[in-house]
Amino acid sequence: MPWNRKHLLDLESLSKAEIVEILDTAASFKEVSGRSVKKVPALRGKVVVNLFFEDSTRTSNSFSLAAKRLSADVMSFSSKGSSVSKGETLIDTAKNIEAMGVDAFVIRHYAPGAPHLLARHTDCSVVNAGDGSHEHPTQGLLDIFTIREKLGKVEGKTVAILGDIRHSRVARSNAHGLRKLGARVILAGPPTLVPPAIGKALGVEVSHDIDAVVEQADALNCLRIQFERKAGRFFPGVREYAAIYGLDDERMKRAKPEAIIMHPGPINRGIELTPELADGKRSVILQQVSNGLAVRMAVLYLCLGARGN
Amino acid sequence: MPWNRKHLLDLESLSKAEIVEILDTAASFKEVSGRSVKKVPALRGKVVVNLFFEDSTRTSNSFSLAAKRLSADVMSFSSKGSSVSKGETLIDTAKNIEAMGVDAFVIRHYAPGAPHLLARHTDCSVVNAGDGSHEHPTQGLLDIFTIREKLGKVEGKTVAILGDIRHSRVARSNAHGLRKLGARVILAGPPTLVPPAIGKALGVEVSHDIDAVVEQADALNCLRIQFERKAGRFFPGVREYAAIYGLDDERMKRAKPEAIIMHPGPINRGIELTPELADGKRSVILQQVSNGLAVRMAVLYLCLGARGN
Amino acid sequence: MPWNRKHLLDLESLSKAEIVEILDTAASFKEVSGRSVKKVPALRGKVVVNLFFEDSTRTSNSFSLAAKRLSADVMSFSSKGSSVSKGETLIDTAKNIEAMGVDAFVIRHYAPGAPHLLARHTDCSVVNAGDGSHEHPTQGLLDIFTIREKLGKVEGKTVAILGDIRHSRVARSNAHGLRKLGARVILAGPPTLVPPAIGKALGVEVSHDIDAVVEQADALNCLRIQFERKAGRFFPGVREYAAIYGLDDERMKRAKPEAIIMHPGPINRGIELTPELADGKRSVILQQVSNGLAVRMAVLYLCLGARGN
Repeated sequence: MPWNRKHLLDLESLSKAEIVEILDTAASFKEVSGRSVKKVPALRGKVVVNLFFEDSTRTSNSFSLAAKRLSADVMSFSSKGSSVSKGETLIDTAKNIEAMGVDAFVIRHYAPGAPHLLARHTDCSVVNAGDGSHEHPTQGLLDIFTIREKLGKVEGKTVAILGDIRHSRVARSNAHGLRKLGARVILAGPPTLVPPAIGKALGVEVSHDIDAVVEQADALNCLRIQFERKAGRFFPGVREYAAIYGLDDERMKRAKPEAIIMHPGPINRGIELTPELADGKRSVILQQVSNGLAVRMAVLYLCLGARGN
Repeated sequence: MPWNRKHLLDLESLSKAEIVEILDTAASFKEVSGRSVKKVPALRGKVVVNLFFEDSTRTSNSFSLAAKRLSADVMSFSSKGSSVSKGETLIDTAKNIEAMGVDAFVIRHYAPGAPHLLARHTDCSVVNAGDGSHEHPTQGLLDIFTIREKLGKVEGKTVAILGDIRHSRVARSNAHGLRKLGARVILAGPPTLVPPAIGKALGVEVSHDIDAVVEQADALNCLRIQFERKAGRFFPGVREYAAIYGLDDERMKRAKPEAIIMHPGPINRGIELTPELADGKRSVILQQVSNGLAVRMAVLYLCLGARGN
Repeated sequence: MPWNRKHLLDLESLSKAEIVEILDTAASFKEVSGRSVKKVPALRGKVVVNLFFEDSTRTSNSFSLAAKRLSADVMSFSSKGSSVSKGETLIDTAKNIEAMGVDAFVIRHYAPGAPHLLARHTDCSVVNAGDGSHEHPTQGLLDIFTIREKLGKVEGKTVAILGDIRHSRVARSNAHGLRKLGARVILAGPPTLVPPAIGKALGVEVSHDIDAVVEQADALNCLRIQFERKAGRFFPGVREYAAIYGLDDERMKRAKPEAIIMHPGPINRGIELTPELADGKRSVILQQVSNGLAVRMAVLYLCLGARGN
């Protein structure tokens, strides 16, 4: 059994065997979610803390539900209206919560590296739920899980990640994980959002020609344009973006027959991809969400040592 | 057993037998709330999602507690700080939550018909917790439950609903449910808030003479003046409203000896009714709250098919 | 068994035997928190309501976790976005929640005496989680628990409470509890924040000479300067405060070898005490947090009559 870590901080530092261990554990938990009584007692009496310094109802709900499905208790702690707003440091906040006898922190933070800092100062497990533009390892894992499930395997497959690569922790986690499992990864989008240096840093290909990329890809993972983070400053307008870099039926005619379309959500319908594609038969977007639950159950289960290894 | 629906969207489309089935099921759950250990395992492993697009701590708490008393897990999702504020549609939001493996949506929405729309797009159960000025079926049911409990039966009783009928989903749900069970319903209040067309649309009587109504009613259900929704624009002032349409001891001298006073809360004390009446022996206001829990347990239990039919 | 109260409203009205009963019960619950499965079924099926009219993530989390560790369900109710903002009174709010069949209110309120008022109007248990500048009894109890644990006993020990005594409910609860258990209590700080009348009112000593106090104390409890409540108006500046009234290594050279340093958190590092002292070997600050959980479990357990007396 390759897993003997207490934390999941990023995919960059995991081995191929560790990633496969998470995916296999997630596969067994996916079966639980299909049962009538969707609970297992693996983490009964444990407390998982959602420590979110950025809003994300979707991710925090997914982790909460994963923890509850393992019979853990969940405590949610956002930076608003808390002692953080009274000037307390991240470590002081965490040490105080830890002193209440909790077992794991699921942390989302705007600062890259915040989960790593926390892991050095706590005896609890730490799971990174997104740190700045660095990594979002469980999103990477659920994307990889979905690719493996839909395409049969990851090795040798070509995965294109489209859009705002520059600011994307999702792209980074996907690139690291997919490379380790032997996939070919192409980052594609406008030159302003996909600088060549990123490809070099991550050891993957870069392209600005979406049509060429669509022809080669087995999986097309469209990232969200994060207008709320002013991503709109990096291209002339949404119509231009949709026309040149967005996915639509016309462009998808070039794609392989079995190619799948992914998106981490929430979708800007009509920009990254058309509503028809988002809801069409190539789309595995909702399966990604379902798989996210299984992956997060697996991560909490393994990091909290519930397997007893 | 008449119940074989998956959703509770309104009272207008229910049969008399279906309403009675909910009331009878609620009566058996009311007994659970009186026990020392107030839990039954009926919905263990199920997940109920509170999807609230309008603030309502009171109603969402009542549903949450009802779900927990049935041993379900509860996930609360408000439109603030969520992906809804990132421009996602209701259906996209719901499909994403559904993909996490949840079982029921309890939805409150400012748009009439939103729960019906949701029900057409999800495999989960949908319970309407108030949609605009359309319906609020569980409030209607708990009011009817309370009338049945206090007056012994509903058929043949005269129920007056007083106040801002124009904007009230509570009035609509009450009118539909009470009529089906054979009660006489009178909607009463200022002509600006009780237009005759409403009576015609709902098939019930309309009156602007509160004194005459008080004399005839077995139950007086005072609606809340919703100042936060600018209901104050429909009458000259609160003192005039209280004097002409509010309930006080003087006016209640005309009432039948056994007539009960109801209010869905929160009360504007001194406007819709005096504090003395709100806390007096005719008042069944707090029993309405208690019965709300039993009714919501029954609705979740029946819609989620926990009875096994 | 001395405990037969339903409420914990303050320490002023408790007997020595009652305080000791809470401390002893807490000691047995502290053992539970050290187990792998940190739950006991004592309050299964009970509902504990956090009714917070002031923000306090830390205290409400501690109570929530204490309640969950006893297997109770928790309902959180803050004054924001609730019917309170629609003008409802505290008592109406509480009576409505009570009608849902809940068992205990944990109330924090800006008005001194609000928990006492509530206790007179409800059949539920009421636990004061801080009322204005009056009392914060569970904070007092956890401080006293920590002193007893670290120093072996309370009787005959000298406890100094440093800082903003004038506005501090923590100081008041500590003073009452410690006196009853036979400790010597010294309130110390700037004359503007420690008026002599307070010492007289609480029956304890007052000093403005921190060096002299440090020499005598077995426990030094540093209160937080509440800048968010404009406590800064009572002294010239934070550097002056730190120099004259703050704890640092230099000043602590005068202290007894076994003297402990306490703080209710969150700490203003470098003002009330230096980071070195906060994290040093005399500091018992995180143990206070851990003990808070055990104390709150004990209080809920005793007030809800789970012992069966």
